Amino acid sequence: MQARSEETRTRISQTALRLFGEKGYEATGVAEICAEAQVSKGAFYHHFPSKQELFVGLLNTWLQGVDAGLSQAARKAASVPDGLLAMAAQTREVFAAADGRLEIFLEFWEQARHDPQIWKAFIAPYRRYSGYFAEIVRKGIAEGSFRELDAQVAGQALVALAVGIVVQGVLDPQGAQWDKVTRDAVALLMDGMRRR
Amino acid sequence: MQARSEETRTRISQTALRLFGEKGYEATGVAEICAEAQVSKGAFYHHFPSKQELFVGLLNTWLQGVDAGLSQAARKAASVPDGLLAMAAQTREVFAAADGRLEIFLEFWEQARHDPQIWKAFIAPYRRYSGYFAEIVRKGIAEGSFRELDAQVAGQALVALAVGIVVQGVLDPQGAQWDKVTRDAVALLMDGMRRR
Repeated sequence: MQARSEETRTRISQTALRLFGEKGYEATGVAEICAEAQVSKGAFYHHFPSKQELFVGLLNTWLQGVDAGLSQAARKAASVPDGLLAMAAQTREVFAAADGRLEIFLEFWEQARHDPQIWKAFIAPYRRYSGYFAEIVRKGIAEGSFRELDAQVAGQALVALAVGIVVQGVLDPQGAQWDKVTRDAVALLMDGMRRR
Repeated sequence: MQARSEETRTRISQTALRLFGEKGYEATGVAEICAEAQVSKGAFYHHFPSKQELFVGLLNTWLQGVDAGLSQAARKAASVPDGLLAMAAQTREVFAAADGRLEIFLEFWEQARHDPQIWKAFIAPYRRYSGYFAEIVRKGIAEGSFRELDAQVAGQALVALAVGIVVQGVLDPQGAQWDKVTRDAVALLMDGMRRR
């Protein structure tokens, strides 16, 4: 039963992601998701309290993948700067794994910006990443790779750089080689952080 | 007649900006804009071919203000690094002058992302700013402030940083002191660019 329930949940998510991408978030109803995924409304609401929650779930699943990739890159690297460069090198995978979610995000954000609860779910990852990267920079200072600098500022700069590149990559995929831009920009930023 | 026509155009723009912010871009019709601005539909279409063009106009007016501020900061500064720091210090004014346009942008983007012509109007500023900042970096190299580095990469890094901070500032205005983050992050990035 457990496995079947999980399979149903995944099928609903995958179907919703496809329909959101094809028709837009607003234009896709729960009834349509159920019909396409061949599940009852009861089964849908057993897994997801609402369409909004389903979408937040889709975003979080993607972010968990991003997080796992970042952690692995950090673990494998011999130093913090190497780790940050390895993270930057994952841009292509991050975009590929997003699989249309980022475009939907823009529409969803519009739907959600007057709903404080959904807003919170959205803003939490941003705030978390700032702390996450500040911690990595602190490690870099401790290991002697970086000079004594404001780790919080450096963390925010790294997140701003990443957010800026992701947004530009979504709006203008052909505008630059975004994975190269990420790697080069992170390397340049780290030049300012290294111990002299 | 010229002055009156200009006054009508401005009144349409200001009314539309207010209504878009209050009700959303999609939910605001040309008829409503005309009624609120007390102009005929003929007058509206004399000034704007469509609601989309009106919105692109609103964005461009804002960007012209941003550009003027950036140019002034660059002109007044004694060196390129000082100029870039002065530009970074304008973040607060840039947000204030955006006056709700950035939130509407998200919705508008959703409307426009399947329209190649509108998409082009949107993407042009991004691409232009990359070139603009690369040129400034080249000047910085020429004046001896920056080491020999890839000016295009540095330009893209500066734009990514700015875009990332603007997006985060819109999504999460209370999440950080964004004007301080901008200044500090640009200073940190420039640390990596300076001549040793």
